[in-house]
Amino acid sequence: MASFCILDEFEVHKNEEFLRIAEELKPELHETEIAPVRLLKLREDGSPEPEVISEEAAENLKAKCLKKDDKVILDFGNHHVGYVTLDLSSAGSHQDAPAYVYLKFTERLDELTADTASYNGWISKGWIQEEYLHVDVLPAKIELPRRYAFRYLEIKVLDVSLKFSLVVNAVTGKAVSAVQDEEVTAISTEDEILKQIDRVSTRTLKNCMQLVFEDGPKRDRRMWLGDLRLQARANYKTFHNTDMVKRCLYLFGGLTFNEGKIPACLFLEPEIEPDDTYLFDYALLYGSALLDYYRATKDMDTLKDLYPVAIRQIEIGLTYLNEENLIPDRSGEFWCFVDWGEGLNTQAASLAILIYSMRYGIRLAEYMEDAKTSQWLAEKMDVLKKSAVEHFWDEEQKLFVSGAGRQVSWATQVWMILARVFDKEKNRELILHTIEVNPRIRMVTPYMYHHYIDALIRSGEKERALDEMKRYWGEMIHDGADTFWELYNPYNKYESPYGSVAVNSFCHAWSCTPTYFLRKFYLEK
Amino acid sequence: MASFCILDEFEVHKNEEFLRIAEELKPELHETEIAPVRLLKLREDGSPEPEVISEEAAENLKAKCLKKDDKVILDFGNHHVGYVTLDLSSAGSHQDAPAYVYLKFTERLDELTADTASYNGWISKGWIQEEYLHVDVLPAKIELPRRYAFRYLEIKVLDVSLKFSLVVNAVTGKAVSAVQDEEVTAISTEDEILKQIDRVSTRTLKNCMQLVFEDGPKRDRRMWLGDLRLQARANYKTFHNTDMVKRCLYLFGGLTFNEGKIPACLFLEPEIEPDDTYLFDYALLYGSALLDYYRATKDMDTLKDLYPVAIRQIEIGLTYLNEENLIPDRSGEFWCFVDWGEGLNTQAASLAILIYSMRYGIRLAEYMEDAKTSQWLAEKMDVLKKSAVEHFWDEEQKLFVSGAGRQVSWATQVWMILARVFDKEKNRELILHTIEVNPRIRMVTPYMYHHYIDALIRSGEKERALDEMKRYWGEMIHDGADTFWELYNPYNKYESPYGSVAVNSFCHAWSCTPTYFLRKFYLEK
Repeated sequence: MASFCILDEFEVHKNEEFLRIAEELKPELHETEIAPVRLLKLREDGSPEPEVISEEAAENLKAKCLKKDDKVILDFGNHHVGYVTLDLSSAGSHQDAPAYVYLKFTERLDELTADTASYNGWISKGWIQEEYLHVDVLPAKIELPRRYAFRYLEIKVLDVSLKFSLVVNAVTGKAVSAVQDEEVTAISTEDEILKQIDRVSTRTLKNCMQLVFEDGPKRDRRMWLGDLRLQARANYKTFHNTDMVKRCLYLFGGLTFNEGKIPACLFLEPEIEPDDTYLFDYALLYGSALLDYYRATKDMDTLKDLYPVAIRQIEIGLTYLNEENLIPDRSGEFWCFVDWGEGLNTQAASLAILIYSMRYGIRLAEYMEDAKTSQWLAEKMDVLKKSAVEHFWDEEQKLFVSGAGRQVSWATQVWMILARVFDKEKNRELILHTIEVNPRIRMVTPYMYHHYIDALIRSGEKERALDEMKRYWGEMIHDGADTFWELYNPYNKYESPYGSVAVNSFCHAWSCTPTYFLRKFYLEK
Repeated sequence: MASFCILDEFEVHKNEEFLRIAEELKPELHETEIAPVRLLKLREDGSPEPEVISEEAAENLKAKCLKKDDKVILDFGNHHVGYVTLDLSSAGSHQDAPAYVYLKFTERLDELTADTASYNGWISKGWIQEEYLHVDVLPAKIELPRRYAFRYLEIKVLDVSLKFSLVVNAVTGKAVSAVQDEEVTAISTEDEILKQIDRVSTRTLKNCMQLVFEDGPKRDRRMWLGDLRLQARANYKTFHNTDMVKRCLYLFGGLTFNEGKIPACLFLEPEIEPDDTYLFDYALLYGSALLDYYRATKDMDTLKDLYPVAIRQIEIGLTYLNEENLIPDRSGEFWCFVDWGEGLNTQAASLAILIYSMRYGIRLAEYMEDAKTSQWLAEKMDVLKKSAVEHFWDEEQKLFVSGAGRQVSWATQVWMILARVFDKEKNRELILHTIEVNPRIRMVTPYMYHHYIDALIRSGEKERALDEMKRYWGEMIHDGADTFWELYNPYNKYESPYGSVAVNSFCHAWSCTPTYFLRKFYLEK
């Protein structure tokens, strides 16, 4: 099902001062030279699980004379975000026709064997990182102008001529990021899988840290508010690039629309502009991101500037309540994200997230010494907690339900726990009961898993949280992740919200938070 | 059948002085602004003959919001060689995915409906003028870096997103040529078809006149000696750019190989270099091209420089004779071109072309006052004429035959007439008899038709030559030619020597000579 939002009336309010502050914080990107480390051959039997049947040294590349339909697969050894230059020449007689070359950059091995031509999902096939090049004159040094997110590069000769072959003398590249590996030290633990999870987390974060916190460097290459909040959390514990968080908070704060709503995401080019998409939960979580920033920096100037924006999101959120103090069910729309996953009802979660955001609003108001705001938020929050229990708690099942169909999902329980509708002990019982029941409506994104881990920790289930992290993110590593993925459903590894995994993002910001949890709750103490 | 030559031992001898002279004559290209004149819609029913079902003004383009799979066809009104710039933007919400766009430039309308993906001929599909573009940021002005030969441009949206459409605000271009339309005045005749033939001839010539005389601006985009000779003939009567002829003669003269052979063609990039292809007939015809040049310019310096090169080709040609004064049959190889056309035996024609070249050699020697050479050439020529009659004339059929299979072809008769093996009256009888018999092995290229028209005129059949020109080139115009084609077999309009018309060239130098015939033999007298 296509999930997107187009707002009919969309009037952007630019706060030029906020945008100026953001612009001044625009980072210089660091460039790192990269090169292929080996050449691969895959078994091509139509299986979705590719198998490397042979490999050889990358130096062998330049000795290959490639004819029509020949291909080489270059492995750059790790996930990179950056630019690639091809150094091409010919062998045999003089080049007597354009060399016609197909390139496919992939983040994962299985994308190489996927049939991209048949992709027919609901988001643009333009996201598939492939190119068709005519090289009229050889030798040629071709600096590809586009940025790619990739570990693998397939170079296929669509045609040369009977008189000459294509030679790929070298493929070089430069990776880009706002941060550098050296800025982070590895965690000290004997647990190999935790080390790996931390390493892959920080790589994911690094590769998404460009001119802003991007959600995914392959797709969508822009800044989503929901991702930003989680990235920032991981960033405080690793690269600690607080300027970038500040920049991004000012960008969102400086690009509101209509009654002051924050858009769900911002486009970066040709100029920074908001998307005409409102996500109820993302907008509410702005305050949580702002509070995290203030706690990490004690930057009162920024807090003062952006506090009104955060409070405004809560005020707007409250306007959606009906007379029963419920958020009407809008699960059929792309209006409150919560999680990907077919059929998830988000009504209860949306109320829980509103409550959650109010707690953060109260903390912000306290730092701002705005007693009036903290007081009315606290009062209203109590009303909503009661409403949540009254309408959504199923005493028989001992679980929260959502929507007219009284759906039981993992997400609803997790957000009710994070909203602290119950006290800590009852939350603990709820999360353990949820695990036992294992509702069929599962979590499919690392974004939702983040909140699940958070809920476990906040309920005093730290060890279980660690086990779950190992199971979920560790399993991605077992399945070959160099960076963590946008979507991972251990029950359906080829799940995609878009109609095909070909356009899934395999380095996705919202999946980078294990490093946050590990460094905050486990290893530093 | 694939027809190409790769010489095992290929040692290029550069005459730096000749190459310097050629370099100094390198032309500046004239640029002319071009734009689409209308938009077309074609019936798409899989028929190879496309039909325009509607057309609208080019100004309507910018009002169209193109979604996935939408396409527009732009008609630039005439055949052009040049560069195109796309001015693109988006409509709807902010661009949230790369616009993925397919472009196809075609010389003829029917190339638009041809399924290029299934092309499987023996020359490179890289010649098909198509591009796949990802446009990451809209609006964008995209100056396509490659040069195209085209009248039509299809722009197809492979994908955008559900939130935005692609808008093509404008498509502009610049056509390039070493010459300009204004340099040639139209012929004065009441005959509309002759006017058209002349106009299309000069356009073909103009579009092939770039930094050298190219054979075809779509394919092969280089200089073939056989084409050069005919282009130069048309050029003397039209643009009269004798510097370009001189430049090209010096280039061939300056880039010989092994025992002094002239290569059949030269590549222009990255530097001017000879192809490792020897065509017996093309090399021999260098002298004919040089004589034409001298007669047009009286440039004795050039004649003196290049005369030895021309004579050397004849000397080399003679070394191929066997003890019976015959050229052994090499029809199975790409060695003596004569004509495309399945199954043509070239043995007799190759001897005829050798004889023909000797007559030109004698003229050159006379201008050079080189009596010794003219004498031995004349003596040897007589010997070869006798050999030709003795071995190839079939008294019963009253036709020349060729090869062990005693094949009767049009090409053999034509070249024997041009070689003047018989006197003018007997040649006239021969050509008339050939027309009557209509041998099954027909002529398929305008290159061969040029020689047929020449043979008719030289045999005193001027009116018939005019009729034949009207029939052959006029029929191409009837079939939609804006420029004349590389290959035209009225008996099989989809004939291609390459396995598919998709890679045929539809603006091809060797087809431009009707303007030469008209202006030399008909209209100026």
